[in-house]
Amino acid sequence: MKLSIHEHIKEIPYYPKAMMYGREDGWVRLSSNENPYPPSPEAISHIMDDLFYMNRYPWDGGELKAAIGKYYGKKPENVLIGNGSNELIEMSLKAMKHTEKNTVIISEPSFAFYAIASKIYGYEPVKVPLVKMKVDLKAIRDAVDDHTRLIFLNNPNNPTGTIFNDKDFKAFLKDLPSDILVVVDEAYAEFVESKTFPDCFSSIHDYPVVILRTFSKAYGLAGLRIGYGIGEESIVSYLERTKQPFSVNMMAITAAKAALSDQKYLKKVLINNRRGKRFLYSALQSMSIEYIPTEANFILIKIGPNAEHVTKKLFDEKILVRWLGAYNLGEYIRVSIGTMDENKVFVEGLKKILLNLS
Amino acid sequence: MKLSIHEHIKEIPYYPKAMMYGREDGWVRLSSNENPYPPSPEAISHIMDDLFYMNRYPWDGGELKAAIGKYYGKKPENVLIGNGSNELIEMSLKAMKHTEKNTVIISEPSFAFYAIASKIYGYEPVKVPLVKMKVDLKAIRDAVDDHTRLIFLNNPNNPTGTIFNDKDFKAFLKDLPSDILVVVDEAYAEFVESKTFPDCFSSIHDYPVVILRTFSKAYGLAGLRIGYGIGEESIVSYLERTKQPFSVNMMAITAAKAALSDQKYLKKVLINNRRGKRFLYSALQSMSIEYIPTEANFILIKIGPNAEHVTKKLFDEKILVRWLGAYNLGEYIRVSIGTMDENKVFVEGLKKILLNLS
Repeated sequence: MKLSIHEHIKEIPYYPKAMMYGREDGWVRLSSNENPYPPSPEAISHIMDDLFYMNRYPWDGGELKAAIGKYYGKKPENVLIGNGSNELIEMSLKAMKHTEKNTVIISEPSFAFYAIASKIYGYEPVKVPLVKMKVDLKAIRDAVDDHTRLIFLNNPNNPTGTIFNDKDFKAFLKDLPSDILVVVDEAYAEFVESKTFPDCFSSIHDYPVVILRTFSKAYGLAGLRIGYGIGEESIVSYLERTKQPFSVNMMAITAAKAALSDQKYLKKVLINNRRGKRFLYSALQSMSIEYIPTEANFILIKIGPNAEHVTKKLFDEKILVRWLGAYNLGEYIRVSIGTMDENKVFVEGLKKILLNLS
Repeated sequence: MKLSIHEHIKEIPYYPKAMMYGREDGWVRLSSNENPYPPSPEAISHIMDDLFYMNRYPWDGGELKAAIGKYYGKKPENVLIGNGSNELIEMSLKAMKHTEKNTVIISEPSFAFYAIASKIYGYEPVKVPLVKMKVDLKAIRDAVDDHTRLIFLNNPNNPTGTIFNDKDFKAFLKDLPSDILVVVDEAYAEFVESKTFPDCFSSIHDYPVVILRTFSKAYGLAGLRIGYGIGEESIVSYLERTKQPFSVNMMAITAAKAALSDQKYLKKVLINNRRGKRFLYSALQSMSIEYIPTEANFILIKIGPNAEHVTKKLFDEKILVRWLGAYNLGEYIRVSIGTMDENKVFVEGLKKILLNLS
């Protein structure tokens, strides 16, 4: 069909499709930075209680907001919930008024959805390269001009796993015009070990900062889609009005509240991540493979010019990792930290493949 | 905090909050046009199978699209899935290019989200009044001008329960410029009894029409949030690119596929709706209360100047119905058709209240 409707429709590129391989058994899934464990038994049991209420529209999330607020010493009015962090990113973009030219500053590379969503909402993404694999706050400050409406900061940064520190972030905020919304996406914050990680929560009352967190990573609820944002009351209120009613499903609301209450589960997940990280560091060192020390649940590994080929070979062994060609890091793969068994399967698989190549 | 950020943030009105009353026992919930029954046992059993996979991002929905396509004799490429019909409405609005002035034509009253979402996405809603509680396709055609980008048609129309017919719809399409996207929201189509209801599916290859359907109503999955759209391949492809990756949660995908396969469940739901409709018609007639004959799972009832008061009195009896003041129908309430027991509780409650008023 060639109707004149096509003149009016935007041609947006497709979001790059990840290899997921559904529920098929036998795969080692290290490509999507998921939690390798099923969710907290608390979450599962609460979901089961709600199964026979699924014909009703979702609860309004008020109790969950109160629980999240309490967890951070904030009020429910400081809390936004969304259909994954992705919806919170969209709400930020939707909330800002459009003038003739509007730009969004994004680190390059960082989480791919920032740039894609910015384009969908009619912003021009301004990309500021990382320096030594780290977010360059000074260069981001220098890139600000009258057209800048939002800045997306990814901390830890995906796909590098690096962080910027509290001192640099506070200096950055102080120096920034107060008419720019700063969205700090901390999807991987629970995994951070560094003591210098910013305390952004203390800044929300003085600066237009919204912090995004998620239940998809450390809490193991990726399949249910729920993230949250923390910010100053009026900003939260304006962002919330751009939200679809009922965008967060009932099970996600129920499960998130239960998951937040089960901090023992979180502790175990973080212990596994630390152990896996040390194991992978040491295995990679013994193979003389370069990697970027990480504060997240994934490691950026430099494989060299064979990186895409190695990814395919790992795939043949049913080991999923992410080749970073789409991030202009063609010599790298990003590997999620799995269970100890999965980490071992990955290391053995990688060893075998590299041996056959040499 | 008064930062200059507020100059740049849109002030969008809040979506009107419905009275839901969560899981509390003893309520008769007839205010949100939900299915009064829990979802199909097939859906529940498949959700239970997936509980321990919730740490993974959702499957890509390919199998569900194929199943929906097959159900309507279409290809998977003709099918969109979204986080409730609401996300499909948003995708339609996001997909169109913006020029200086863009308008969306909407019947007044119809589903409230069309106008709210249009404003969020920078369109001006042009509202065309119903005639005799019915969508006025002729007046909608007359309202079209160079600024018109989309038309939302709600069939059956919420909150009136009325339909436009196949003949009028086909004539309407034939006469319409082909550069306007026509979104036909058929959320309540499964409940229609009239033989004159349009077959929109036959029009997607010749006209820029996208049909929206949902699993929230007849299939009883409102809490999980999943709707779908059917349209011509290229239009579906462009709309899909505006979609959040992973916007539909894993349980919704799983449950929808199982629900679609359980047509026995659907049949029982429709039988209950027909029985409830006849029962309510006859009860209202015996009380000499005016109502609009419905093709959906709700009935628009004319209570008179006391309608808001009656709604509050019903609420005191733990019976939730929707007063339609927000729809400029202040003398009306909208009552969802419940189980037979619920319908009886509503009729008895209404009788008692009206008796006390007279």
